[in-house]
Amino acid sequence: MKMIRAIVRPEKVSIILDELLDAGYPAVTKLDVIGRGKQRGIKVGNVRYDELQKEMLMLVVNDDEKEEVVKVITKNAKTGEGVFGDGKIFVTSVEDVYTISSGANEL
Amino acid sequence: MKMIRAIVRPEKVSIILDELLDAGYPAVTKLDVIGRGKQRGIKVGNVRYDELQKEMLMLVVNDDEKEEVVKVITKNAKTGEGVFGDGKIFVTSVEDVYTISSGANEL
Amino acid sequence: MKMIRAIVRPEKVSIILDELLDAGYPAVTKLDVIGRGKQRGIKVGNVRYDELQKEMLMLVVNDDEKEEVVKVITKNAKTGEGVFGDGKIFVTSVEDVYTISSGANEL
Repeated sequence: MKMIRAIVRPEKVSIILDELLDAGYPAVTKLDVIGRGKQRGIKVGNVRYDELQKEMLMLVVNDDEKEEVVKVITKNAKTGEGVFGDGKIFVTSVEDVYTISSGANEL
Repeated sequence: MKMIRAIVRPEKVSIILDELLDAGYPAVTKLDVIGRGKQRGIKVGNVRYDELQKEMLMLVVNDDEKEEVVKVITKNAKTGEGVFGDGKIFVTSVEDVYTISSGANEL
Repeated sequence: MKMIRAIVRPEKVSIILDELLDAGYPAVTKLDVIGRGKQRGIKVGNVRYDELQKEMLMLVVNDDEKEEVVKVITKNAKTGEGVFGDGKIFVTSVEDVYTISSGANEL
């Protein structure tokens, strides 16, 4: 299975979660994080804010679901073409997934 | 080595941490997370709460310790047979583990 | 690519982030976490505090950048030789990295 982690703008979380649910992916874990991207924050007047509030969404899905999940997140997290700060998605491999209530290994 | 991440009910964290310590696993990192599971939250009267406070516990252990850690967590995180919301455990592979104070790579 | 996660003392975060930026690594995600290490917390008088506030820093870098990032973090997170609680660095493999604004897979 694959673990998909998306770091996105907080104002985009609600639509992303709705669209993931509609696409059949209800199970998501959400974390508050602070992000400093390649753009090194934003400048408002003369003040540079180099730490920005972001949200991390984490899903564990089957290998063949990865592409769809990445698509749903990208489509809904994007604010424009090549806009800094829209975020990143990281995909890693998961070796075992246990459901605590049943004790079963899903793999 | 293996990274074990468990997403569990907050009220179960204390007993899980105690039992992990007794079993010889003192080192744990804990994060506040929000979870939306397959059950899509809980319904209280007419209101559906689809985002629930959870805790994520993270441990990095030797390959041959994985099974025991999963067992200790499962046993203590479980509230009943097949109960929704008891959580999940994800296991991934770790390539390097450095101890900052010594600079040593533990692998 | 590699995902590097460092669990460090909160008072060291600022210098680590500055040094990472100077070394060419602006993009970092930061999370508040609670850590219980091998030393099982600290004792102040008769009271043992076994849960300590830590910060987790997460970077995703190219394979050949891993060593430098680990060095920058270790050097700046360390408070002394063999001091408990200076933290750990975990390295894992990342399969895909998508930039949301462009939709491109960086791998």
